[in-house]
Amino acid sequence: MSMEWINEHKILIVGLGLIGGSYAKALKRIGYMVYAIDTNEESIKYALDNEIIDKGSTVSDPELIGSADCVIIALYPKVIVDWFKENQKHFKSGVRITDVTGIKASVVYDIQEILRDDVEFIAAHPMAGREVSGVQNSDDRIFRNANFIVVPTDKNTPESIRWCKDLGRILGFDRVSILSPEEHDKMIAYVSQLTHCIAVALMTCNDNEHLRDYTGDSFRDLTRIARINENMWSELFHMNKKPLLEEMDLFIEELTSIRNFIASDDSEALKEKMRTSTKRRAYFDKK
Amino acid sequence: MSMEWINEHKILIVGLGLIGGSYAKALKRIGYMVYAIDTNEESIKYALDNEIIDKGSTVSDPELIGSADCVIIALYPKVIVDWFKENQKHFKSGVRITDVTGIKASVVYDIQEILRDDVEFIAAHPMAGREVSGVQNSDDRIFRNANFIVVPTDKNTPESIRWCKDLGRILGFDRVSILSPEEHDKMIAYVSQLTHCIAVALMTCNDNEHLRDYTGDSFRDLTRIARINENMWSELFHMNKKPLLEEMDLFIEELTSIRNFIASDDSEALKEKMRTSTKRRAYFDKK
Repeated sequence: MSMEWINEHKILIVGLGLIGGSYAKALKRIGYMVYAIDTNEESIKYALDNEIIDKGSTVSDPELIGSADCVIIALYPKVIVDWFKENQKHFKSGVRITDVTGIKASVVYDIQEILRDDVEFIAAHPMAGREVSGVQNSDDRIFRNANFIVVPTDKNTPESIRWCKDLGRILGFDRVSILSPEEHDKMIAYVSQLTHCIAVALMTCNDNEHLRDYTGDSFRDLTRIARINENMWSELFHMNKKPLLEEMDLFIEELTSIRNFIASDDSEALKEKMRTSTKRRAYFDKK
Repeated sequence: MSMEWINEHKILIVGLGLIGGSYAKALKRIGYMVYAIDTNEESIKYALDNEIIDKGSTVSDPELIGSADCVIIALYPKVIVDWFKENQKHFKSGVRITDVTGIKASVVYDIQEILRDDVEFIAAHPMAGREVSGVQNSDDRIFRNANFIVVPTDKNTPESIRWCKDLGRILGFDRVSILSPEEHDKMIAYVSQLTHCIAVALMTCNDNEHLRDYTGDSFRDLTRIARINENMWSELFHMNKKPLLEEMDLFIEELTSIRNFIASDDSEALKEKMRTSTKRRAYFDKK
């Protein structure tokens, strides 16, 4: 464990939604002082009333920012770089900053490009979530059995990488690993963004209200994530366009092959796909 | 409750796999005499040793068939009609026969076409399953919270329809409903067969072994059913080809639209899809 996590007592969270709030709960329970900035007055009031944070502000208060020993950015992806431009002047010298953004290449390099030389930004992606949003629904138990990914670039120091891995463990994540921004974005396009697109398309391709009584577990499982925060996810898709389109094209092509095996009664080719699928999925269950 | 379910004591199950075995467990616990026919010697031995059935045979024993007050056909779809051709001569006069097949139009009419006039076949689909097969994995708890669909044609009598609905309730299903063969097949193509095709394509479109550490709940949920009995499902897809291809084409078209909204940065159209998806999925959770 880095010494910093013993010494650092004041943690500022910028953006107090579902994930920011869940970070706050985990960190405050351990004993850190947790500050938060969010433009939504209700969110700050709720967090103060419920002792999720120690101090809060609806504006980017220079004093609050300047008092933080480390900063966690939990804003929507598109506003992050602008927030840095406007507020980085208030950072205490030497502070470490991390984030929770679901896409990396399109934000990390921009932040590091404009960042002051005496502070460091190390990106991270806590792979956890719920089908509901807001600090009111925050819950740090969503970090259990989940993955925390540290996403360094060549601008990051070994000390900050270690510090960020420690943060993942402190928050309660099961597995902490390291990927480059590009590896991260390709992986997330496949295992998360593509799956959300599929779930949405499955709900919207057919008027299905009358089918509610007939939907078994399969359909429910495949569409659980079809309840989706459209503002956040459309930003994430937009900012990860190239890897996402590649994965979507691969999937559509694959499903079209399966469609054609069915159309042409090629049951041997169809069974071969099913055998591959069964084998791969069994490997996922094995650990 | 029909009188028959009080009087009928000898139930023959033909095909003792996961579903046949689960029927046997439910029916035997209530107190019926349960007989079974399965060509697999191990299955019959296991079921007798574990008191899942009272009598069993690895051949279509005329005496066993002739002693049954009702018959449940739990065979793979393609062999059902032949089984009737060879063995219907052994049925006791007046016996009621039902099935568990996952597709309907391509089997029900053929059976009723060739069936003796003094017995009645009423189709049913227990919408329950597991990712494992065989009587060894049978478990009638899979019927709880599940749907039992009775699928009559104009050849069926009101008495048999009532009898079959009672069977669904006796087995422990949550909801018992009625659909025509064509309605059933269209519904099942969408909520079950399409979802299985999607799960398979998601596993096979990408070599994903190295991603095991990064897969969160979304990916796991969408691919749970990717462990699939390839012999049974390829038969089901083949025998429901027309409705399934229609649903697959609708889905592929819809996912391609979403892909194109992302490619062209049409975030308003993308968000509109997500709003529809969220609203529809919320309706599924409401009951």
